[in-house]
Amino acid sequence: MSRNALENIVLGIDYGTDSCRAVLIDAKDGREVASAVAPYPRWAEGRYCNPARNRFRQHPLDYTESLTAVMGSLAAAAGPGALAAVRGIAIDTTGSTPCAVDASGVPLALSPEFADDPDAMFILWKDHSAVEEAAAINREAKAWGGEDYTKYEGGIYSSEWFWAKVMHVFAANPKVGKAAYSFVEHCDWMPALLCGSQAVDTLKRSRCAMGHKAMWHAAFGGYPSDAFLARLNPELPRIRDTLGSETWTSDRACGTLSREWAEKLRLPEGIHVAVGAYDAHMGAAGGGVREGVLVKVMGTSTCDMTVSPLPAGDERLVRGICGQVDGSIIPAMLAYEAGQSAFGDVFAWFKRLLSWPLAAVLPGARGAEEAAKARLAAEISDGMMAALEKEAAALDLDTSSALALDWLNGRRTPDANQLLTGAIAGLTLGTTAPMLYRALIEGTAFGARAIVERFRQEGVAIDRIVAIGGVAKKSPLVMQIVADVLGMPIDIASGDQPVALGAAMFAAVVAGIYPSVPEAQRRMLSPTERTVEPNPDRAERYGARYRKYLALGAFVEREFA
Amino acid sequence: MSRNALENIVLGIDYGTDSCRAVLIDAKDGREVASAVAPYPRWAEGRYCNPARNRFRQHPLDYTESLTAVMGSLAAAAGPGALAAVRGIAIDTTGSTPCAVDASGVPLALSPEFADDPDAMFILWKDHSAVEEAAAINREAKAWGGEDYTKYEGGIYSSEWFWAKVMHVFAANPKVGKAAYSFVEHCDWMPALLCGSQAVDTLKRSRCAMGHKAMWHAAFGGYPSDAFLARLNPELPRIRDTLGSETWTSDRACGTLSREWAEKLRLPEGIHVAVGAYDAHMGAAGGGVREGVLVKVMGTSTCDMTVSPLPAGDERLVRGICGQVDGSIIPAMLAYEAGQSAFGDVFAWFKRLLSWPLAAVLPGARGAEEAAKARLAAEISDGMMAALEKEAAALDLDTSSALALDWLNGRRTPDANQLLTGAIAGLTLGTTAPMLYRALIEGTAFGARAIVERFRQEGVAIDRIVAIGGVAKKSPLVMQIVADVLGMPIDIASGDQPVALGAAMFAAVVAGIYPSVPEAQRRMLSPTERTVEPNPDRAERYGARYRKYLALGAFVEREFA
Repeated sequence: MSRNALENIVLGIDYGTDSCRAVLIDAKDGREVASAVAPYPRWAEGRYCNPARNRFRQHPLDYTESLTAVMGSLAAAAGPGALAAVRGIAIDTTGSTPCAVDASGVPLALSPEFADDPDAMFILWKDHSAVEEAAAINREAKAWGGEDYTKYEGGIYSSEWFWAKVMHVFAANPKVGKAAYSFVEHCDWMPALLCGSQAVDTLKRSRCAMGHKAMWHAAFGGYPSDAFLARLNPELPRIRDTLGSETWTSDRACGTLSREWAEKLRLPEGIHVAVGAYDAHMGAAGGGVREGVLVKVMGTSTCDMTVSPLPAGDERLVRGICGQVDGSIIPAMLAYEAGQSAFGDVFAWFKRLLSWPLAAVLPGARGAEEAAKARLAAEISDGMMAALEKEAAALDLDTSSALALDWLNGRRTPDANQLLTGAIAGLTLGTTAPMLYRALIEGTAFGARAIVERFRQEGVAIDRIVAIGGVAKKSPLVMQIVADVLGMPIDIASGDQPVALGAAMFAAVVAGIYPSVPEAQRRMLSPTERTVEPNPDRAERYGARYRKYLALGAFVEREFA
Repeated sequence: MSRNALENIVLGIDYGTDSCRAVLIDAKDGREVASAVAPYPRWAEGRYCNPARNRFRQHPLDYTESLTAVMGSLAAAAGPGALAAVRGIAIDTTGSTPCAVDASGVPLALSPEFADDPDAMFILWKDHSAVEEAAAINREAKAWGGEDYTKYEGGIYSSEWFWAKVMHVFAANPKVGKAAYSFVEHCDWMPALLCGSQAVDTLKRSRCAMGHKAMWHAAFGGYPSDAFLARLNPELPRIRDTLGSETWTSDRACGTLSREWAEKLRLPEGIHVAVGAYDAHMGAAGGGVREGVLVKVMGTSTCDMTVSPLPAGDERLVRGICGQVDGSIIPAMLAYEAGQSAFGDVFAWFKRLLSWPLAAVLPGARGAEEAAKARLAAEISDGMMAALEKEAAALDLDTSSALALDWLNGRRTPDANQLLTGAIAGLTLGTTAPMLYRALIEGTAFGARAIVERFRQEGVAIDRIVAIGGVAKKSPLVMQIVADVLGMPIDIASGDQPVALGAAMFAAVVAGIYPSVPEAQRRMLSPTERTVEPNPDRAERYGARYRKYLALGAFVEREFA
């Protein structure tokens, strides 16, 4: 690689649910130089989790070990010199994923006493242990008579978020609660660790995490008051005191890379490390979010993000979305986050359902036939989604009356309610698996439409849609149905790693290569790979079905919550 | 067999949807002497049908050929002498299953001109070709200003019934319409054919068929008026004129067995043949129907029947059941028919759904592996229902929130509406196939409860339930859940052929062995094989879920009809 080619190298590190991904990007044009991925070893073994009870914990060593592993692979992939040329780093993680820490900012699970205690580990975004605590927060926020601190988070606080999880640790595990000096989000811990600035009292908390998930807002002067928090749990004011009153956007440096971590990661000491943020937020930047553009990160669930200019006067509240925060995506713009609790997960559920006979009936096999049967079962399982997609694509819109409500994992937006459930109506004896699959796709598309319509009702313009994430790349049928249901074209971004690309944009800003995130976007954004155009006839006909979807949803909300 | 043992032999002939069954019964105690079954050859090949359009026709030769075949088998099974000793015959069939006939009562499909015309054949009970015609009948019945002739049939006329099917033939096939002198139900044609008394003008129409499905009622002086029928189709008054004004109950003889058929069937010439009736009605007698006892014939669908004493004054109308007819089950008692359009069919649908991958993915197999794959698919398919039943039985009532509405084939009772569809609510990402299976069973049980509750609301006592039919015999889990949901014990009748046994009771009456059907029941009824007792705890807890079922049903009726 020429010296010139190494002038503007930046590093995006993307901590997903299952693995850590590192991508070297040439900030000149956003081109990917090299990438690597490393899974979390303990998580891969299912340790510290109980999926049946929606308990998902991650050990801090999973994060550090996967980071050193991924950087080793990246060095091998990029060739000598590339890592040494890196000028800036930005890190995104899942969230809200907080962990109890000591005063030095060290996760309690890193101390021998709590090494195997799941409550002393990071509580993963999708952990639902804190359902009761979230309900208490929502109750108190409306009832206590003071400020409703949930108002910038759509008015409904989720069990997936910071304070609910903190409360839950105090309620469920007093020993960890007592040892906890503070709680730190994964996206705040990682950059601080790399800069050697973990200590809680000087930690730079991210605007993104704290604004969207911890009820921080400038209008509140920071976090909720002691008076409010004490009503929830008497320990919370003590935690609040450790958070400071400021938060930082990710165009700001958290600090510079420490010698220790520079050596571990084979990177130059002293380069700037950006304040961290959530994956979906950096992904929105990487997908080209700007005013009027909704970036949908479509995977097992969706995150739907857009921005608007900061208002001159008071901030107008958007009802029922996950949150609106100044600067959490693009600094100096108001960012909005919405999403669906289950998207690809709905299709995965259907595959699991149809696979049940393979798992339940086959184990009767014995002896020599066993391996052959297992092979055939695997073949059926492997071919199932492609066969479903093919047959579902061939169905006309009116072939089946089946209509699905996509709330199989509750509803994140609009109007979060994790107690809601999914439904399928319009079943007949002639309803086939491809018809149900198509209905489930349509149901998730209707869920996407409900979000877009809510934004518009609340005065936030949505003129263009960009889709990133696994489902956007892999399922043409899903994307076509979403476009038809929305009645809008959807741009599928090129590039395999838009989230890491987004992180690289922030790295380029903290490295001084570009003066602002919008400028970094302008230079680094991947071109649109393809645009999915809606079919006008189907778009029209989906209107009536969407109204039935809304009616089904209203019924479930009234009778089944 | 001793002469004594042959003294009271009677023959029940039961024409089901797929085959003709003949059972020799000793009228002394109802014991089965021998039985045989023969399928309908053309039907087995799928001829004249289009299941995708719910068109189901049966050729008259299927009925006559299967009858001679089944009697040959019965002769072989019963040994010499048994057939020669038969003292009386009764025949039941499906219904409403009418056919266009000439003035001699010969089905038009038996003439060369119409030999392959499906509209000149018997239109099977489950044929839904006449949906539009049924809608017209319902509209006119309420709107025309005269008598509402549907009032003894629950107030809603079905596309499965006589006049709708007659209208449909006139509308769809004028050539057949022109050639049709009349229309005859399968249950009326068979006995008349055997007695050589087919001629339309002297045909004895059964109370059961005409009362439940053709709007015959003594209070009307017979069938609907010409004025009403002419509004539906100008040809209908002409057909009405061929029906006469009387109908006959099945304790009356249609006539005596002709020499021709006595020879064909190896039976004694001149023995009495009872007026025919529908299978479910004779099955109700065979199951022991009497005042306060609901007999449920549980198979792919259900027929739920009970009787009450004839009222002293005006007959009180029961809203929304399929019909109430004086003498259609037990002569001189008021009979009520209700039922669910899909019962076992709902479970068969679920099996088809789960089997989809086996059919859709495996055909990719080629060469040597093909046979192995087909074997595997068969093995999975064969084991599936047992595995589902086992896992569903192990689930606690509150394990899953899934709740099903059983209207996958429309709703027969209460308040017939074939446009309604099924639904499943309460779905989560953790909902498994056994949970859905259990929810579907519960949904069908809730449907059964809705019928019982309607009877009670309308003043018809239901104190005891007897279940007969395939599902009653084969699925202990289904029967337990039905008992729990109803909060009532359910008696499962012993004996494999309660419908044929019921026919044999009528045969015994026309043969003069017993003076009345209740007396025949008293002597011939099979003992209860086992009683399924409801679990009081579950019965209590199902109350809340049943209310949700009603709410889901009300929603579907409002928004999805």
